[in-house]
This record gives sequence, C-alpha cells and structure tokens, in this order.
Amino acid sequence: MSMSGGRGDRERLVVIGADAAGMSAASQARRTRGPAELEIVAFERGHFTSFSACGIPYWVGGEVPERDRLIARTPEEHRARDIDLRMRTEVTEIDVDRRRVRARDVDSGAEEWTSYDKLVIATGARPIRPDMPGVDAPGVHGVQTLDDGQALLDTLAGTRGRRAVVVGAGYIGVEMAEALINRGYEVTVLNRGKEPMSTLDPDMGRLVHTAMTGLGITMVDDATVTKVLTGQDGRVRAVATDDAEYPADVVVLGIGVCPETALARAAGLPLGRHGGLLTDRAMRVRGHTDIWAGGDCVEVLDLVSGQDRHIALGTHANKHGQVIGTNVGGGYATFPGVVGTAVSKVCDLEIARTGLREKDARRVGLQFETVTIESTSRAGYYPGASPMTVKMLAERRTGRLLGVQIVGREGAAKRVDVAAVALTAGMTVEQMTALDLGYAPPFSPVWDPVLVAARKAAAKVRAGIC
Amino acid sequence: MSMSGGRGDRERLVVIGADAAGMSAASQARRTRGPAELEIVAFERGHFTSFSACGIPYWVGGEVPERDRLIARTPEEHRARDIDLRMRTEVTEIDVDRRRVRARDVDSGAEEWTSYDKLVIATGARPIRPDMPGVDAPGVHGVQTLDDGQALLDTLAGTRGRRAVVVGAGYIGVEMAEALINRGYEVTVLNRGKEPMSTLDPDMGRLVHTAMTGLGITMVDDATVTKVLTGQDGRVRAVATDDAEYPADVVVLGIGVCPETALARAAGLPLGRHGGLLTDRAMRVRGHTDIWAGGDCVEVLDLVSGQDRHIALGTHANKHGQVIGTNVGGGYATFPGVVGTAVSKVCDLEIARTGLREKDARRVGLQFETVTIESTSRAGYYPGASPMTVKMLAERRTGRLLGVQIVGREGAAKRVDVAAVALTAGMTVEQMTALDLGYAPPFSPVWDPVLVAARKAAAKVRAGIC
Repeated sequence: MSMSGGRGDRERLVVIGADAAGMSAASQARRTRGPAELEIVAFERGHFTSFSACGIPYWVGGEVPERDRLIARTPEEHRARDIDLRMRTEVTEIDVDRRRVRARDVDSGAEEWTSYDKLVIATGARPIRPDMPGVDAPGVHGVQTLDDGQALLDTLAGTRGRRAVVVGAGYIGVEMAEALINRGYEVTVLNRGKEPMSTLDPDMGRLVHTAMTGLGITMVDDATVTKVLTGQDGRVRAVATDDAEYPADVVVLGIGVCPETALARAAGLPLGRHGGLLTDRAMRVRGHTDIWAGGDCVEVLDLVSGQDRHIALGTHANKHGQVIGTNVGGGYATFPGVVGTAVSKVCDLEIARTGLREKDARRVGLQFETVTIESTSRAGYYPGASPMTVKMLAERRTGRLLGVQIVGREGAAKRVDVAAVALTAGMTVEQMTALDLGYAPPFSPVWDPVLVAARKAAAKVRAGIC
Repeated sequence: MSMSGGRGDRERLVVIGADAAGMSAASQARRTRGPAELEIVAFERGHFTSFSACGIPYWVGGEVPERDRLIARTPEEHRARDIDLRMRTEVTEIDVDRRRVRARDVDSGAEEWTSYDKLVIATGARPIRPDMPGVDAPGVHGVQTLDDGQALLDTLAGTRGRRAVVVGAGYIGVEMAEALINRGYEVTVLNRGKEPMSTLDPDMGRLVHTAMTGLGITMVDDATVTKVLTGQDGRVRAVATDDAEYPADVVVLGIGVCPETALARAAGLPLGRHGGLLTDRAMRVRGHTDIWAGGDCVEVLDLVSGQDRHIALGTHANKHGQVIGTNVGGGYATFPGVVGTAVSKVCDLEIARTGLREKDARRVGLQFETVTIESTSRAGYYPGASPMTVKMLAERRTGRLLGVQIVGREGAAKRVDVAAVALTAGMTVEQMTALDLGYAPPFSPVWDPVLVAARKAAAKVRAGIC
C-alpha cells in the first residue's frame, strides 16, 4: 500500500461514488475552481458514472432501446473536465482524523491511501435483499445498477418461460411489473401489505391495485416471501410464501433500498434513524467542516413533518450535488429539505403523492381532515378527458395543506407539483382554492382537480372548527 | 310596464347574466339559503345558461361533437334548484337608488321593473368588433356565444370554398385557426402585431409564429385590417388590409373582448381603467353594500404587478361566483386576485404564460433579469420526450419570480402551474431551485424544465447583484 501525494499548494477534493450526487458535486466545484486551484479525485467501484437508475425499468421494458441512453455522462466526459476519475476502485475506509481514504482496485486488489482536503460522500443506496434461501439463484435479479439491468435482460433473452414474479409493490415493483408486462410476461406481484404503493394511503393504494389487476397483473396481498425455490439446473423455478408457491421463470426484487453508509458508520460519522448520514443545510456532515454528503446515502429534512427521512431519488441527488459543489467551490448554497413528492406509472395509470400520508401525520402529532374527490384531466366534454382521484389532507384548525395523493390516467401525475409548491410555501387549503392555475378545455376542467379537492378540504376544515 | 313584487319577508337576490359567474353565485347562495329565506331571480338575454365559451373552438373544430356538451347546466336544471330564471330577458337599467332593475322580454319587447335586496352583476364581456365596412356581412363571424358558434358552423356547412381568414392572433384567433385547420380549411391569420399571442413576449411569440407556419397556417404580421369585401351575393369574399387583399370564404373575428359594463356605467357604478367594474376583495362593487359583480365584467387585482387588469376567463368567473354566492348566502369568502395564468394550444403546440411579460414589468417600475432555456417534457431518453422553451423573469436584487412563459409540445402547458403557485406565494427564483417537483423518466427530466430556468435565473440575479 502506498500513499499518493505530491500535489503542491492546490487543494484536493475526494469524491466517493461517481453517480448523480458525487459527479454533480464534482462538476459544479470544477465550474468555479479550475484544476490549478482544486484537484478532484473521484472513486467509483462500479462500471458506470452518472447513470439514470430510474430509467432501468424502461430499458428493461423496451421503451428505452439501449443501455447507453441512460448514461448522462461517461467517465471520459468527466475526465475531460479535469476530474481524476478512478473507475472500479472501491473506497474501503475513511480516516477522518488523518483526512484520507483507502481505496482498492476491484480487479487487482491493490490498495492505496489518498489524502483529501475536502471529502464528498456519495455512496448511494443499496437494494434491500431479503435474507432467505435461494435469493442468489440464477434468475433472481435486483435492478439497482446498469449491470443489474443487463443481467436481467440476459436472463429474459435466455429463458423460454414467460412467468415473472416481482417481489415488492412499491415504485420499483410496479415499474418492473409494467416492464415485464410490456415484454409479454405473465406477471405476479407479491406484496407484503394489503395494497401496492405503500407510499400512498391504503384507500388510494386500492385504486392502484384494481388498475394493476385490470392490466392482467396478478396481485398477491399480505404475502410473506419465505424462499426462492430452484430447479435441478440451480435456476429459480418458483417463489414460496408462507402459504403458497408461485412458479417463476424470472424473479425481480423490488423491495426498496437503504442508505449505503457502512463506510461512514465505520468512520464514526453521524447517522440518523433511517441509517442515512446526517448533514446540515449546506449538506455538510454534521460536526465535520470539510466533509459533505448527498444523494441516496443521506437523510433529508421533511419540511411538512419537521423530521428527517430517507428518500432515494435522482432528482434530490442532483440537487444535493449542486449544493455541495457550490459550497466546495467557495460559494454558498443550501438544500432546504423535501416535501416528499413522487410520481410513477404502471402502463397508462399515473400515480403521484406529496407530503404526508394519514399515518405520517398521526405519527408526528398532526390532526387533520381528509377529502377525496373525482374529477377529470380535461374539460369533461373534451376528447381524452380521463378520470382522476385526488385525496387531500389538511391540518385541523389551521387548514394548512399536509399532503396530496393522485391516481389517474394521462395528465394526473404532474398535477401533484401544484401541491408540492403549496406545501413548500405553507399554504392553507383555503388559500389554494384561489390559485390561478392554467385553464383551457384541452388541459383542465374549469376547476382544476386540485382546486376541487382544496375547496372540499377547506369546507371540511371550516366545518370542523364550528 | 308593471312592477313585480309581493314577496313577503324573504329577501330577493337578482342576478344579471346567467352564465358562469352569475349562476355559480346563484347556486352557491341557494346552497346556504333555501327558497323560504331567499328568492333568486336571474335574467339572461341569450338562449343558454352556464355554457363553456372556451369550448366553442373545439366544437367548431369537431373535437366536441355537439353543442349541448358545452352546456354545464340547462335552464331547467337551474329552475329545479328554485332559481327563477328568466331567459331571453335583457336587463336594460339598474336603478341603484330604488334598488330595482328594469328588464325587457327580448321577443315581446315587454318591460318590467323587479326590485332587489341584493344584486349580482355578471354581464360578461363582448367581443371587440372592428368598426369597418363589411364587418356585418354574411360569412363574418364572432365566436362568443353558442349562437355564434352555430352560425359559424352553418356557414362552414353551406360554403363550398375552403379559404378561411382569422382576424386576430390572440387566444381566440389561434384556437380558431386550429379549429379551421382541423376542418380542412386553408387558414390565413391576420395579426396586428409582429408575433401572435401578444400575451407572450415577442421572442416567445416568435416560437408560436414558427410553429403555426409549420402547421400550414399563413401568418400575416403587422396587418391593419381596413375592410371586409363582399361579392355580388352580399357575402364576404375577401378581407382587405392597408396593403393587400386576402380572399376568404369565411372570416372569423378573434380580436378579443372588453367588459360588458354599459348598464353599470349608466347606473353610476365604479369602472376601472380597462372599463371593468371595480370590486373589493369580497367581490362587492366598491361603495355599494348590496351589489356584487364577477366574471368577465370586472377588473381583478394582479398580485404580481399590484394593479387592476381585465381577464375574461371561465375559471375566474367560476371562482368569483363561488365567492359572491358565499357572501350573499351570509358566509364569508374573498377573491384575492390573479397572477395571470393562461394556457392554450394550436394543434400539438402548447402555449402557457403566468405573471408579467417584460413590458408589464417595465410599466410598473420593476427591473428584472430574464432567462430562456430549452429542455424536454420527459427524460431525454424516454419515448415522447418533446422539447420545450421556458422563459423566466425575476426581479433584480430580490430575485422574486415575476413571470414564466412556456412554448412546447405535450406536457408543456400545465407546467406553468408550478410558477403560478410560486408567484402567489411570492417565492424567489433561488427558493424555486429547491422545489420538490415530481420526477420519474416518463414525466420529467431529473431537473424539471421549470427548475432549470429557476437555476439559471437565480445565477443571473446573483451575478447582477455583484
């Protein structure tokens, strides 16, 4: 093991993890400080940089024809910006006291310490992989990395059977169900809960359940997966729950992710309740002047509940990277927090949510009113007007908006953005009733569905006060 | 002329104009006060109630197959709610001192005074009809009422020629151009200005110009229409400008509207700079305790400029009606104002704006930075990702958002709602960069186009401060 050094007067920024957060930070820092002032070294244990993990289901499903479309920036592009990018090199230790990291060449096994003046931790998240027999059998796939996606595609190409089992019914699960339906598979989704999309309240999840069933997807509720059964060839042949077996030619695990913070934990850096790194508003690791962290490995402040949470989402990772890069570059920027917006789709069903679910609100001591309304994406008489259901939560007494969930067809999901901005601004549902949203028959009924919900919620808040 | 009376103890609400604002007010008042408490008399000079004028272009264009789809509520439906609706009855005078209105049966000519305790003025707007020779010739059409729409459809059905001239290139003009293109006409749009859609800045209007030309629409700029030329049969044969003639088998006037406030003016009620009635926040006519006004005949407060303006739009009229009805019914509600959001389309081109244009900002003494960015509706690699252009104005020094304009394809227009809420909340573009908008590849790039614009605007504001 050697120690790299000899860098003269300039500072060295070390980045761990070369995906959205890490490379946004590196690129933004480079924009303000040239290579004469700032050396940037980035370590990436995988084969790719800056790729869209969110796009993998659409590549698997065939909408995106080739892998490389998902790569926003290649290693060569980063290097062209004077970033010393070390691919297939895994950081194995952070030595906070001596301001250095130890990294291992994945292929050769060679290790080396690299010192830093400033450090960015962007180690991402790792998929939760249930600890059960058979889970590592050929034919069982996660979908976190491009390598995972390629392995799944290879399995699909090499397997004659058309029975797919998806374990998990959150975003990844439902998106993978769509991908496999689009590939012509018979899809069974094994869901731990009663309804898919547990990021929604169960009444809204029910609508997703019904729609997925309508798409020909077999939905199994309350399923406790116990093991993966393999055939004589060692490949997956079925997934067993505690009361049934589901034949499978391919299995996709879509259970969710948790922050990849083993390195940070070993280094004694502060972790939160969900296992993510804790940062301040400038994305500095709390208590550490020269260490920043962002992306899927950190916890973020939920502006509605006032508590930290973990959300793995590329759009946050990119924002974190921008903030970190600006600060590392000598500027000033902050990440104020999130309101928990997420959108998804299963075939033509659109699903969106922002803010708190009923159980989130209860957990943080908020009392609330809920309303659920039906409306349409366009004026009812305009061709293509499609139904949507909007659920809205508002705090008792104050009437402050707490959350919105939408399930519908074309034009439903992005309507949640209105609620996301209103949540950020701390608006009441009464204030929302007067929002000047775009109206024309091809785009909205004369009362936008979000406003219909706000009117009803405001009435319920008023009635609750009397 | 007789005086209707004999109404015992109950109050009488008189409504002038039975379209969106008037009948929303009547219905909302009825919801809280039954017929034993409140008599409601509504006068309507036309043949229809509560119809969607905004839908007329789509009926003419064929997307909406029949007229009655545009009627939200028929006279019979209103009467079933104990509203004494007098169709084809025009109010000809408001006697504020004696709290009564005079109305004339349009067909018989009979006149009658009706007293009121509370009065709602919802007389709407009237299309601007240029004062020039030939403008009343057969084949020249406005598109304000359902009768207008039917007359135009009758002309289209009865005319062999396929040359249509649209006078005006605002919302009505471009929507009618689309309708006539959809009907298979050769369409020429005569525009007084250099670019269509003068509700946009000219640089954004230029994009609409290019797109409309690409759709096969002939765009004539800087056109001063001088007269309508007629043939020997008395029908329109061409439209003349000061330097050319445009052959026409049918002519549509889409020049815009102005508040229909002749009655109010004669009654001495307060009118604003744009000719609309002036109200307080509760939609009461200023200085008059028992008279309310709403819809296309009033001026509204622009929350961004701080000045009153006139906007004829069904969505505002409905909100006004709700507010008025609530107040008339003994409750409390206000209309805080608008930010000037409008969306429209021409075939697959979507157009949106909110807040101030450059010239609006200058007029009210605001200095600003502008940015214009190109982005896409979905992740660039996702099928159907279509380009959009977003222009953003932010105040110098404060960085407060002042306005947004968007021109693009599917998924462009309703993105303006994010800016509408941000304007309402008084957000800065710097604050907007952190907005937690819905992200998934089928719905947005990882940075939503509005956020891309906000980032660039924020950088420009900061640079302008240094």
